[in-house]
Parts: sequence; C-alpha cells; structure tokens
Amino acid sequence: MTQSLADRLMDAIDEKQNPSVVGLDPRFENIPYHLKTGDSQRQQANAFRRFNEAIIDAIEDIVPAVKPQAAFYEQLGSEGYRVLEDTIEYAHSKGLIVITDAKRNDIGSTAQAYANGHLGDSAYAADALTVNYYLGDDGVKPFIDVCNKLGRGIFLLDKTSNKGSGQFQDQSVLIDDDIIEELRRLGIRPNNQIPLYSLVALNINRLAQKHIGERGYSPIGAVIGATYPEQAEILRTIMPNSFILVPGYGAQGGGANDAMPCFNQDGYGAIVNSSRRIIFAYQKIKTRPEEDSPRKFMPQQFAEAARHAALAMKDDLSGALTKTDKLPSSWRNTA
Amino acid sequence: MTQSLADRLMDAIDEKQNPSVVGLDPRFENIPYHLKTGDSQRQQANAFRRFNEAIIDAIEDIVPAVKPQAAFYEQLGSEGYRVLEDTIEYAHSKGLIVITDAKRNDIGSTAQAYANGHLGDSAYAADALTVNYYLGDDGVKPFIDVCNKLGRGIFLLDKTSNKGSGQFQDQSVLIDDDIIEELRRLGIRPNNQIPLYSLVALNINRLAQKHIGERGYSPIGAVIGATYPEQAEILRTIMPNSFILVPGYGAQGGGANDAMPCFNQDGYGAIVNSSRRIIFAYQKIKTRPEEDSPRKFMPQQFAEAARHAALAMKDDLSGALTKTDKLPSSWRNTA
Repeated sequence: MTQSLADRLMDAIDEKQNPSVVGLDPRFENIPYHLKTGDSQRQQANAFRRFNEAIIDAIEDIVPAVKPQAAFYEQLGSEGYRVLEDTIEYAHSKGLIVITDAKRNDIGSTAQAYANGHLGDSAYAADALTVNYYLGDDGVKPFIDVCNKLGRGIFLLDKTSNKGSGQFQDQSVLIDDDIIEELRRLGIRPNNQIPLYSLVALNINRLAQKHIGERGYSPIGAVIGATYPEQAEILRTIMPNSFILVPGYGAQGGGANDAMPCFNQDGYGAIVNSSRRIIFAYQKIKTRPEEDSPRKFMPQQFAEAARHAALAMKDDLSGALTKTDKLPSSWRNTA
Repeated sequence: MTQSLADRLMDAIDEKQNPSVVGLDPRFENIPYHLKTGDSQRQQANAFRRFNEAIIDAIEDIVPAVKPQAAFYEQLGSEGYRVLEDTIEYAHSKGLIVITDAKRNDIGSTAQAYANGHLGDSAYAADALTVNYYLGDDGVKPFIDVCNKLGRGIFLLDKTSNKGSGQFQDQSVLIDDDIIEELRRLGIRPNNQIPLYSLVALNINRLAQKHIGERGYSPIGAVIGATYPEQAEILRTIMPNSFILVPGYGAQGGGANDAMPCFNQDGYGAIVNSSRRIIFAYQKIKTRPEEDSPRKFMPQQFAEAARHAALAMKDDLSGALTKTDKLPSSWRNTA
C-alpha cells in the first residue's frame, strides 16, 4: 500500500518541527555574481542549478519541503526544464519533499499528461503539485488518480494571495438548500449566498474526504493566501482534513500570525511558503516582516543568509503556534 | 508600431480563407511506428518532432495557425521542451501563426516569467497563449504587457469545452446595477444574476476594448467550447471585439455548426481548433462528425490523411459559414 502524501508530509514536518517550505524561485538578476558564467539561456540555467544546490544544502536540515516555481525554469525552455529536473533530483536526494508550483490545468488526456509529467514517472516528477480548479472535477481527476497510485498530492487554488484575487474568487454565488445543509454540517451558517472561494473549498473538501491518510489528513489540499486571514478561518472550517499551502509569508505582506488561521487546533494542516525572503536573504531583505534593521550578508554568504532566514522563519512560526496554543503536542517536550 | 496579433491573425485567415487551427497534440501511442526509434524520453521526443514536421508540411498551405498543446511536450521534461522549441521554430519558418495551449496562470513576477517564456524572447516563444483567468487581472497584466510590446495575443479561459465545465463556470453570481447597465449597453438584458462565465466574459471585454487592432479585433481573446453553442451566442455578444478560440470541434462532439455562434456576422472573430481528428486522421477517425464510413489510410500515409482531414474541416467550416450567411465578403468572389 502506497503511503499517503499527507502522512509523509506530516512525518517530515514533525521531524523538522517546522511547517514551512522554501520556494525555489531563482531569478537571474538576484543570483550572486560569482555563480554566473554568462547570460545565455544555458548559462542562466546552470547558474540556477548552482544556486539551488547551495540553498538546498543550507536548509535541508531545517525545512521539510521545497517548492520550485515552474515559471522561472520554464522561462528558459528546455535548458530550464533540465535544471528543474536536476533540482528536484537533488532535493529528493536530501530527503526533502518537493512541491512543484505550476498551477497546471486542463481536461481529459491533457490533464493526464500534466499529471504524468509533474507527479508520475518523468525526470522532474515531484511529490505534490499546485493545480488550478476553474475547469472543475474533470480537470482534477487525472491528477487524483496519479496521487492515489503513487502517493502524491495536489493543492487546488482556492483563494490566492494577490490583491486582485477577489475579482472572481470573492463573487457571491447563490447556493441551494443541499449546499446550505452541507456547510452547516461543517460548522458554517450561511444564508443563500457565499463567496465563490467558499464553494470551491466545499468542492475541495468533497474530493479530500475520499482520500484521508492514516494521520487524518488528505493529500488533496488547497492554496490559500496568508494575506486573507479572515477568509482563511472560514476555509479552514470548510476543509477540516485538507492541507493548506499558504503563500504570501513575508514578501507579500503576511506574517506568521496571518498564517495561523490556516492551521487546525492540532497544529497541523498548513504549510507556509516563503521564497524571496529566504533564498535572496543576502540582499537587503528583512528575514522577518517585523524586523527593523536586517542583518547584512556578502553575496558569497548567500547560503548562510538563507539558512539564517529559514531558522528565523521557523522560530517565527513556532512562536505564533505557541501563542495561539496550536504547537503540536509531540513537539512540546523537545522544543 | 508593432502590428496587432488580431490583425495578423485576420490576414492569415483571409489568406487561407480558413478560420481553423490544427492542434499539435502528439501522443506517442498514436504516432506511426515507422517514426519511432525507441521509447526513451529522448526517443519519444524525437518521434514527436518528426511527426510534427511532417504534419506541418502537409497542412501549412491550408490553415493559418497551429496550436501545440504544452502538456504533451512538458510530459517529456527537458527533451519535450526541446521539441516544442523545434516545432514552433519550424511552424514559424512556414509562416504559420503559433498559439501555444498552456493555460498558464500566476501573479506578479511569476506571471511575467510565463509571459516572457511563452510570448517573449525564449526559444519557444509563440504568437499567442491560452491563459487561465481565475486569479484575476493581476495575473493577466504581465501577459498583456508582452502582447502590446511584441504584437502577441492571449486567449483567456471563459467557458471550457468539458462536460463538467459548469461546476464553477455556470454558477450564478449576483451583479450590481453598474454591471447590469454595462451588459445592457452590450445588448444583454440580465436580471440581478448571471452565470460566472458571463461575468468573466465582461471582464475579458474590458481588457480587450483597450487594445483594438486596425481591423476591429483585439489580441485579447477568449476560449469558449464548441460544445456549448447557446452560451457561445451570449458570450459572443458580450465580447464583440474578441477573437474566440473554439476547442471541441470533432473529437469532443461539436461540429462546424456548433461553432457558428462564436463567429460574428462579418465572418471573423473565431478560430476553430481540431487536434486528434486532423493529426491522427490516418487511424480510424472520421474526418467530419457527420461522416459514416471514414476513408482509411496506411500509417505511412499519416500526413496525407491529415491533409485530407484539414481540407474536409475547411470545407465544413466554409459550408457552415455560408449557410449562416457569415462567409466573409472578400472570400465570396474567389471561393
């Protein structure tokens, strides 16, 4: 029997006592000059590889997972995909869980092709993938099939972290009595209209409930921005057994406190991402939102700076979990 | 001044007198055996390249555009992206417009990376790209910037062709008086609720209106499945100046008649895609929905079969345009 990704993810979070993920979003202009050999697409891709491997070495004992953002690799075409493959292989060799942030979406055999590539048997297969849900269950089923077969996971976009996410996601949709009743059973008291993101969450929960792992969580999760804590609280209630991938820590304005509504009372159910604030911490980037004067590092110290920032984020999350009485009980003796 | 993609697309459609696009969706199991040298990812990718180049040679004088489906290339990782690059280069060398069907979506600098890769200066830059709009204008602006700068286009997902597309896209959303008034000006008489796909269309129209080309159309278009002709009629009205990319011809059940509501009365404004029914026509695939006993071809004749199918689709569309009195006036003397 293949182990559920949800169980693997929880074990990894327990091992590191850290529910965070480092986003591997290489940007050529931010990479220290000494890693660059030129600016052809191949040379840029090779700089990405050197940078990622040093970052992974610096944080592999701190975080349970890394999240490469596909767009930055794809931008360099086949050379970029080669480095995505190399980076995922390297992260796996260090025992890290890999969540590819690609927001893929399509239907039928096309969705199947994305699922096979990102979660199946390709050279860049990850443990989990972000997926856009606008096309409905038709577009998600091929991903879930691969998840079940190989112990992978998906995070479906629900409420994204951007300022304009409300344009469609916050629209009021009319719901019927069956849905009102379904929400009531989950602990929500709606009238006959709810925001679209709540309806999306209800649909995610239906998929998630069919695949609960041994530790009580599902490999079918959701993306909810840390920038919307009020909404996160409601969505946490609608999807009690789903892991929430929380972007927006740090660079997009949300801090550890803003991410807390995404955690269940047991201290699990969320994994918080930070990208730029960790990997480019050597630049004049504050490692915590509330920090006044950040430490400064030389470009040659970029990996040390990333480690410093990853540890600061771990402390920040632990502190916020403790303050909200959500620190997992098994961490309390050793922490 | 960079020429608008809408103008280029219309000129290409006029030149071929054919508003259709051939989907380059290679599937290894459907590719004729004589093109295969083995089944490693590199060998599969090379078979895709040989297949695509022969298909392009067979149809380049018939259709204005081709549409590679990114998923099938991406499935093979870096080897697949290399062939996507080669295919796009080859199609461009034959003067074809390339629409990459990748349904990309993200925000900020990540969306910018996708835009740069798929529409910018990469080795696989196309003329147009399909984009998922669930994240709102934040996620689309970087694509539009590249479109304006380089004369590219995007097709935003609105009403997709799959059976379950209604799960979110058909949800009734409540609208205010301003939107009711905006829809009235466009010729729609709504009450205080409309399906989400109509609201999405209204938002697409707002973006499209800012960028109208010399021939009256915008490079900001929409994807609307030929499987929903009733909805297509309304959406055509809401987005009078947008090109509609119509999937679902043939393989997904919709025929030329079903695609007609996506065309304006001037005979423009839509481009109809067919993939499997063209490129794998050599297999026992009917080249028109209404055909009873399809012609049969040997695997070695796959390119000839594709040409036959592309011509049949052109005739089918011309016939339906004539029947609905939508054949562009400039085609009538020569057709």
